[in-house]
Amino acid sequence: MSVSNKSLQIQKTYEALFALEDIREIFRQSLPTGLDEAQQGEFSATLARIKEVIADLETGDGRPACNRIGTLDPRTREKEFINIHPIQAAGRLTPEARKAIISYGDGYSTCDYCRKPFRLDKISRPPIEEFHAELARFVNMDQARVVPGARRGFQAVAQSLVEKGDSVILSTLAHYTEFLAVEVAGGVVKEVPLSEDNTVTAEASAQKIEDVKKETGKLPALMMIDHFDYQLGNEHDVRGMAKVAKEYGIPFLYNGAYTVGVMPVDGKEIGADFVVGSGHKSMASVAPSGVLAVTDEWAPRVFRTTQMEGDLTKRKFGIKEVENLGCTLMGGTLISMMASFPAVKDRVQRWDEEVRKSNYFLEQFLRIQGSKVLSEWPRKHTLTKVDTTGSFDLVAKTHKRRGFFFSTELKERGIIGEFAGATRTWKLNTYGQTWEQIKYTAESILDIAARHGLNVS
Amino acid sequence: MSVSNKSLQIQKTYEALFALEDIREIFRQSLPTGLDEAQQGEFSATLARIKEVIADLETGDGRPACNRIGTLDPRTREKEFINIHPIQAAGRLTPEARKAIISYGDGYSTCDYCRKPFRLDKISRPPIEEFHAELARFVNMDQARVVPGARRGFQAVAQSLVEKGDSVILSTLAHYTEFLAVEVAGGVVKEVPLSEDNTVTAEASAQKIEDVKKETGKLPALMMIDHFDYQLGNEHDVRGMAKVAKEYGIPFLYNGAYTVGVMPVDGKEIGADFVVGSGHKSMASVAPSGVLAVTDEWAPRVFRTTQMEGDLTKRKFGIKEVENLGCTLMGGTLISMMASFPAVKDRVQRWDEEVRKSNYFLEQFLRIQGSKVLSEWPRKHTLTKVDTTGSFDLVAKTHKRRGFFFSTELKERGIIGEFAGATRTWKLNTYGQTWEQIKYTAESILDIAARHGLNVS
Repeated sequence: MSVSNKSLQIQKTYEALFALEDIREIFRQSLPTGLDEAQQGEFSATLARIKEVIADLETGDGRPACNRIGTLDPRTREKEFINIHPIQAAGRLTPEARKAIISYGDGYSTCDYCRKPFRLDKISRPPIEEFHAELARFVNMDQARVVPGARRGFQAVAQSLVEKGDSVILSTLAHYTEFLAVEVAGGVVKEVPLSEDNTVTAEASAQKIEDVKKETGKLPALMMIDHFDYQLGNEHDVRGMAKVAKEYGIPFLYNGAYTVGVMPVDGKEIGADFVVGSGHKSMASVAPSGVLAVTDEWAPRVFRTTQMEGDLTKRKFGIKEVENLGCTLMGGTLISMMASFPAVKDRVQRWDEEVRKSNYFLEQFLRIQGSKVLSEWPRKHTLTKVDTTGSFDLVAKTHKRRGFFFSTELKERGIIGEFAGATRTWKLNTYGQTWEQIKYTAESILDIAARHGLNVS
Repeated sequence: MSVSNKSLQIQKTYEALFALEDIREIFRQSLPTGLDEAQQGEFSATLARIKEVIADLETGDGRPACNRIGTLDPRTREKEFINIHPIQAAGRLTPEARKAIISYGDGYSTCDYCRKPFRLDKISRPPIEEFHAELARFVNMDQARVVPGARRGFQAVAQSLVEKGDSVILSTLAHYTEFLAVEVAGGVVKEVPLSEDNTVTAEASAQKIEDVKKETGKLPALMMIDHFDYQLGNEHDVRGMAKVAKEYGIPFLYNGAYTVGVMPVDGKEIGADFVVGSGHKSMASVAPSGVLAVTDEWAPRVFRTTQMEGDLTKRKFGIKEVENLGCTLMGGTLISMMASFPAVKDRVQRWDEEVRKSNYFLEQFLRIQGSKVLSEWPRKHTLTKVDTTGSFDLVAKTHKRRGFFFSTELKERGIIGEFAGATRTWKLNTYGQTWEQIKYTAESILDIAARHGLNVS
């Protein structure tokens, strides 16, 4: 099968999927008793079209039909290409999640059987309550809630714990959403400096706590640390820092945006008071989604229920949680997390293999003279920052398309997701590629180097 | 076509959709150059299965295959039944949205072409920036952002404007999420009493403001009013109340959870400083989604950008907005809003017809002796609270299945979405039903009444 052949088949797959959605719509417009004549006609015509599409899909022949959805072109990147985008790799949906959102895309689709006490995480059909219990076990914490992205987990914790002017300890490589969560809560960010190896350590965080105490006269109200940071994908000593936090009596939030859903995470063993994960980043879920897991000690504070009372009606809203604003992910987002969850639980057990693939790819990459890995080495993660100033950027300097030559070369080989035009420092993520795909990607990049006269050892 | 025939065809439609997802997965696991032998074999086998399913779909024969996704049963309610659920009606996805999420379900699917300044609403491919401008025009406000549900819009405004202990004016019929937004911001709820006709008026709100001023020595910091409330679906005088708010210099938030996306909304004409809408409730979108639109006057405050600076690194994060925590709906949620938007813009123009259908249905319903409409009459909305204490509840009193007899009778006729077991006061929403479906639903309910010996005039 040629590349264009595969491309047409992907197109035809969408044509068939979309035509089946047209079939669904006919059912939706019909009476429970069945289709009327016009609907039956439309049904037959659509089915005839589907059969043609399926025939084309089988042979890889045929003309592409217009597949646009209004102003949207269907996204085919994950099928036509190998995607090395730094933040997209582990958020790709599993087939189970894709099937689930086909069936549960509608607005409040999870709320068919919502009964007293009327809270999302208490719904038993679909098994949302059970999923929440499983989520908590998955990261070995006591309680868990789904939230609209990891950032909303940071926010819930920060707003519960941080008073105006309070200090919050973050890493010098902290993600910007942690900054914003501190800011929205009225706190002030204090960064733990990096060691020479570009990680933050227990020692440095203890020193920072002391500095803050001396400077402000007060201990920090919270410490939020990324297990693996978003810039280099380096591992930071979360266990050591959680221990330091405990010694000072400072609550410790473990930011697992790059770990929960790809590698095993044991919140209690780490010593975390809060574990936050990202659905769309690392749990194969629709955005925005994530998880906030807490210990029983902190649950009453972070998951506190509403106390507000209507001054006239004396209305109160029972067990609705203030920081979560009641229910959080009432439809396709939650369903995608639930549907992916069995595969996610399974895949975290294969993390070592993912790291091996990451290292294999980068070993090949380093054969290109002048190329560097800026992240710690060997890699403990699939997200890596590389420096090609001494290799591909040399080519870009004299190439008429400048840095874009590199993107074009990659794309011609079916690889995308690098930052288009960047040939100095850039990030990539090999997560989820098969060995065949990893080898193909490595060979492709070596081939591009050789083609442009770079030395490959 | 019999009911069971249609039911099997719906099942077969899912089987075909799910099998096509298996095809997509084969492409995802393959190399850009094409499928290997094993993949080709899987492709052929899956395609053979699809052809059988399509044949069954056509004839309405065949045996159902197992369609479960892990522990999830596919949701077929919107196709097998007419759904009168009070909060689900206008959140049902359009076919365009369903197609779009098939193609854009993956985590950060909207972020392929994210470039400087790296903010969701600035992305031009897909046309997210343009969509934001259109959203603002749609509700005639100056600027708009998508948010993870209307509640997150209330929160952003409340946290920006309300200081600890400040009063916030809400209606006595205010939604609980407004209570929570006030609470999380540290404010105190003050309710405007209802008039005899179960609406809140300009006069009553002016009086309430005076009362609060007298009681607390301070004007309320914010007023949030639902145009149509969630309890009765009654219309409240938002124009009059916005005018009162303006006179007192109190910012006015228009809660359009039950209007934006189903009827025309003109924020400036209403006199709103903020317009909030719900994607999953009224804009045919995946949850959690919504819109927060503001005037240029308030944008700098509610959409203020981060000022936080790393104490060591001096890092700042440019135009990331504090209350939105940077980007909000980075994938399927936003794409569903965008894909549904042309249909949504169109359907708001047909709101009168929806109200006519609502009134037609309820006129038929009122023919059942002892039945009442608790909402204002005639209806100006499709969400209605009814009272069947004098009709179906009389039957329930002596029926061995109590109130559940009514759900069973409805379900047997292909109607769902009422609160199972409730035969006293309950809510329904006729939004989006065709005239044929409306008439069918009305006839069904009259038939149930007659069958159980209730008088039908």
